[in-house]
Amino acid sequence: MGKDFADCDTRDQQAVREVRKIVIDICRQNGGGHGGSAIGMAPMAVALWKHTMRYNPLNAEWFDRDRFVLSNGHAAMLLYTMLHVSGYPHMTAGELRLYGDAKAVDRETGSWKGTLCHGHPEIDVPGVEVTTGPLGQGVANAVGLAIASKNLASTFNQPDVSVINSRIYCVTGDGCIQEGVANEAMAIAGHLALDNLTLLYDNNQVTCDGPLDWIVSEDTNAKMRAIGWHVIDVHDGDHSVSGIADALAAAKSLKGRPTFINIRTTIGYGTATAGTFKSHHGTYSDHDAALYASDHASTHTLTEESRTYWKEAMTRGKELENAWSENMKRYTSSYPELATALRLRVRGDYDVHELLRTFKKPDDIQATRQFNGFLFNELMSKVPSMIAGGADLWNSNQMGDQSHRIFDRDHLDGRVIRYGIREHAMTSISNGLAAYAPGCFLPVTATFFMFYLYGAAGVRMGALSNLKVIHIATHDCIGEGQNGPTHQPVELDSLFRAMPNIQYIRPGDSEEVIGAWIAALDANGRPSMLSLARDPALSLVPNTDRQKVLKGGYVIVEKEAADVTLVSCGSELQFAVEASKRLDAAGVLTRVVSMPCISLFEEQSQQYQVSVLSDSAHIISVESYIATTWARFCTASVAMNSFGYSGSGLENFARFGIDTDGIVRKVMDHVQNTPRDVPDHRRRWQLLT
Amino acid sequence: MGKDFADCDTRDQQAVREVRKIVIDICRQNGGGHGGSAIGMAPMAVALWKHTMRYNPLNAEWFDRDRFVLSNGHAAMLLYTMLHVSGYPHMTAGELRLYGDAKAVDRETGSWKGTLCHGHPEIDVPGVEVTTGPLGQGVANAVGLAIASKNLASTFNQPDVSVINSRIYCVTGDGCIQEGVANEAMAIAGHLALDNLTLLYDNNQVTCDGPLDWIVSEDTNAKMRAIGWHVIDVHDGDHSVSGIADALAAAKSLKGRPTFINIRTTIGYGTATAGTFKSHHGTYSDHDAALYASDHASTHTLTEESRTYWKEAMTRGKELENAWSENMKRYTSSYPELATALRLRVRGDYDVHELLRTFKKPDDIQATRQFNGFLFNELMSKVPSMIAGGADLWNSNQMGDQSHRIFDRDHLDGRVIRYGIREHAMTSISNGLAAYAPGCFLPVTATFFMFYLYGAAGVRMGALSNLKVIHIATHDCIGEGQNGPTHQPVELDSLFRAMPNIQYIRPGDSEEVIGAWIAALDANGRPSMLSLARDPALSLVPNTDRQKVLKGGYVIVEKEAADVTLVSCGSELQFAVEASKRLDAAGVLTRVVSMPCISLFEEQSQQYQVSVLSDSAHIISVESYIATTWARFCTASVAMNSFGYSGSGLENFARFGIDTDGIVRKVMDHVQNTPRDVPDHRRRWQLLT
Repeated sequence: MGKDFADCDTRDQQAVREVRKIVIDICRQNGGGHGGSAIGMAPMAVALWKHTMRYNPLNAEWFDRDRFVLSNGHAAMLLYTMLHVSGYPHMTAGELRLYGDAKAVDRETGSWKGTLCHGHPEIDVPGVEVTTGPLGQGVANAVGLAIASKNLASTFNQPDVSVINSRIYCVTGDGCIQEGVANEAMAIAGHLALDNLTLLYDNNQVTCDGPLDWIVSEDTNAKMRAIGWHVIDVHDGDHSVSGIADALAAAKSLKGRPTFINIRTTIGYGTATAGTFKSHHGTYSDHDAALYASDHASTHTLTEESRTYWKEAMTRGKELENAWSENMKRYTSSYPELATALRLRVRGDYDVHELLRTFKKPDDIQATRQFNGFLFNELMSKVPSMIAGGADLWNSNQMGDQSHRIFDRDHLDGRVIRYGIREHAMTSISNGLAAYAPGCFLPVTATFFMFYLYGAAGVRMGALSNLKVIHIATHDCIGEGQNGPTHQPVELDSLFRAMPNIQYIRPGDSEEVIGAWIAALDANGRPSMLSLARDPALSLVPNTDRQKVLKGGYVIVEKEAADVTLVSCGSELQFAVEASKRLDAAGVLTRVVSMPCISLFEEQSQQYQVSVLSDSAHIISVESYIATTWARFCTASVAMNSFGYSGSGLENFARFGIDTDGIVRKVMDHVQNTPRDVPDHRRRWQLLT
Repeated sequence: MGKDFADCDTRDQQAVREVRKIVIDICRQNGGGHGGSAIGMAPMAVALWKHTMRYNPLNAEWFDRDRFVLSNGHAAMLLYTMLHVSGYPHMTAGELRLYGDAKAVDRETGSWKGTLCHGHPEIDVPGVEVTTGPLGQGVANAVGLAIASKNLASTFNQPDVSVINSRIYCVTGDGCIQEGVANEAMAIAGHLALDNLTLLYDNNQVTCDGPLDWIVSEDTNAKMRAIGWHVIDVHDGDHSVSGIADALAAAKSLKGRPTFINIRTTIGYGTATAGTFKSHHGTYSDHDAALYASDHASTHTLTEESRTYWKEAMTRGKELENAWSENMKRYTSSYPELATALRLRVRGDYDVHELLRTFKKPDDIQATRQFNGFLFNELMSKVPSMIAGGADLWNSNQMGDQSHRIFDRDHLDGRVIRYGIREHAMTSISNGLAAYAPGCFLPVTATFFMFYLYGAAGVRMGALSNLKVIHIATHDCIGEGQNGPTHQPVELDSLFRAMPNIQYIRPGDSEEVIGAWIAALDANGRPSMLSLARDPALSLVPNTDRQKVLKGGYVIVEKEAADVTLVSCGSELQFAVEASKRLDAAGVLTRVVSMPCISLFEEQSQQYQVSVLSDSAHIISVESYIATTWARFCTASVAMNSFGYSGSGLENFARFGIDTDGIVRKVMDHVQNTPRDVPDHRRRWQLLT
């Protein structure tokens, strides 16, 4: 590296100075920001953007670019500064000035302004590969991106022509590598030997609250070696761009393991608060600003020399993309079928609508988890972008028919990832897979529903980032049974049903499982969670309809002038149908609505919603969760009011009065005891007991 | 150890055989169970219960006992077997036969039977220290127990007499030590040099899905050394009780670090499925059962020799407790004041009611997080059982006035724990602290509300286990502001409001913060979460009342014949009050209810609830979260319908129409546009936009 850049030290130092200057400008413009680590990391940023990464600022979406992840997302201003100086056209000095803008209403138009320079990086901004901020998850996203690149390369590259060459660079502070999710993800990266992944550790020995040795006393290098990583030390991270660039070049040549570069830096280097926790967040003094000031007076701008310096990087980026395009031409001519397949992948192009429309259910009644596994394996064969994995419950989830190749260090084209017992890493890695390129990968995860609480922060980031990931959550509700209340979600549906931009779908039978997959595959820009039952239903549910699942809720048992509408889903739907027959016989006319997805139902027209719910006096939900969202359109609920119990599934439904007997008893009591002379608006939602 | 037990190898082997036999009996009685690891761990169980642990089966709650945690809780039957053989009176052979019992209705009485032998161990069973099952958390619980013992010992033991000597023994499978939470907790244990903690690793190289090397390729011993642990290997864990007992004795003598004992075992040792994932869960054949059968035919029972063998352990336990009681007498006579203080601690005795009843609020308006920190520091001085800690946001949480001693390896009597950036470990360690002895520790945790999603599985286990822990969640709702949607919880309240047995309290001002603490301190047997605002309120909220917070909701602005009741809490309460004035002025008479805790409100009498909500035609919640639970008693909601935004707090309330202007506009629209001729039951809850 060194000899190619004979004068680089001086020019690199100038670049570092100007990056630091812009970071300080940003911190001074609107009352502060997380400037300290951004200042400390400036040399590694210059090493990455000038000397290492393959990217083209004029085409942020260039398919074969290297990917950069800022796992310590609070240092967002560094990323914005780098996008600005390296020439991403949208990231103007004007945009930088919007960071932390307190005047969000556009005074001229009266409308709300948006910013590209959010408090933490957001994926919709060109040049930002993933949304980061909640610590540790960025490292897992980077592992997902590295798996994606390895998998595509292994699937498509040929001995004479490589069209997938992306390497993944992730910067982390000490916070991320304390987090459980990062430790899980780093263990997976080591296990899978992801040598296309480089993790740069901004080792500044300072956290929000104080010095790092208040909370960490591990030998991090030794830990990283123990979990299967190469380790390179850089001791002068405050100055030595060439030292960091050399380490990055070395990492590129090291095979068989991912590489951890431990770079010693000083938070807020040079400023008055340098090396202390006070540098973590805040503003900077005139004196600090003068430190890195150039000879020109304006803020947020580069000197002429620096413009030239960064233009070289831009030129290099254009050349790299051009060379790749030439490569693609050669590839297309030598391997036309593969080239077509790759193009379909890049477009996210697959069509399984006909398969799903006509898919035959087996005649024997099965648990929804079992049928789901059967269908999943069909889809795996038809959808090449599907890349799935479980958290060591693949057998219990009934996902595995062993016909699909495992992704491991010796089979990088495999599409089943064994995540181990690491749920949070699984969900966050899946976000990285989905973020590699729109549509290119369709990640599927699987574990027990209860353990999505471990991975919930990853599921959330997928929803926030508009990433299409499908989560298969088996063993839902108290029907989970014997494992007891530690394994029985009774409140977790409330989280995912409240979470914006995710479809929580709880099918009642095989037909609705097909519908759930149609809904999940149709949902571009949002994740879905399929909530499935451990045990087979006792009876077939009548009138279920895969296509109507897309409406969220629909009538399965209709009746004129009914007194009661039962609204149910999942394992309890069969009980609701049986209960409706017994209620009819007892003179209480009862309709039944299947409602596998509340959020899809609420997206329907008001007219449709009213027609489904009808004007029966009692609209009663039936589900063995704590009823929260149901109260939006139900007058009462047959529901849980406590944690579950360590009994069999059927026992539990009976114990908590949510089987057929329990429903009939509670509904009869309620209908008979509801006074008719109370004004309707005083009849608040009731939990039936 | 060896020479004290000259004949122990033969007798120990017999004991191991009989433990394995009972485990197989249990698996055969009701269609299976997680027997494989229980069989593999039998030698370590015998080493612990016979040769190592200080406990008295006749007094499971003996204060100075050693604590045992089965982190791989699915092997529960091993724990039940050990409680049975070692002589815990309640754990009869009859109870063991209830494990996995499918006939839960008592046919004679018709009532639901309970079992002590749950699918996973539950804390209310004597001899079970913590509820385990969700993997990794048991390790963190053990770290909490170890901190508790260290802290008490350091506070009370004297050079000439030690009254706190408890050591913590935790068994883990590979699953736990893959989990992020365990990696976080183990890093903390190493950092804090908890040499009273021994972790026994059941290294059987098999997981649910297959061989361990499918998912793990780390050098676990090297990793444990790197994070500050002693490591001892035991190679013959299938047989060598004495080898394990020797390692445990060595661990006891090793100072300055916790100890990790890596014990190689065979899952399902000796049975047909030994060494394979098939042994993880299931039933066993006659042939397997015959393997470990004794000369007597009955199941679930011991031979006469084994009864004698275990009686020795029971006798030893009684002697140990007697010796400790003598010690306590000497302690009481030498250190009467300390002895009184210790007894108060053991009883969980403190009274801050008067302090809280009369606590003066500062005159200046403060953010609820700021006032909370002020009050918290007062309480820390008055409540010696309080032991608090944060996940590296102690300054931002505004908890730290620096007056309380930090708990670290050099100050084991400190009561402020620096958990580092490890939220899940923080919540699960706190459960261990609370579980040490009822009332002895009152753990407090703190981080941003959003990051309780990382620690939610720990919060849940605290609620399920009836453990009183107080969680301080600052920076709630979109008022969090500048950090953006990654840091702004909009759906997380729905999780904690749906979770059974936890109080989620969202005070609107300083007065209600006091009320929240009264409610939290009063709530024995359940955790509480205080949800607090980052920024100061703009105006004082009138008529708030600390005592009324205990009712969950109460009227703060009353009006006869009001058209509208606004129900609000937290930062939005001030806007609701301002909006009510403007609505009054516009001719829409509006009452205001402060509802800091929905679950407490729902515990009040129906009469009280109706009186608070009144019969105004419109009952409208005002809160910047996704509205789920509110629909139970509101006709409409001013609420979020998406993720937040990276703007300042006040900007966000305005952007999403949940400031005073937005509330007035939405309520006016709603009141004017609600048709009066629609039957009331057709007026479903509405989200106002």
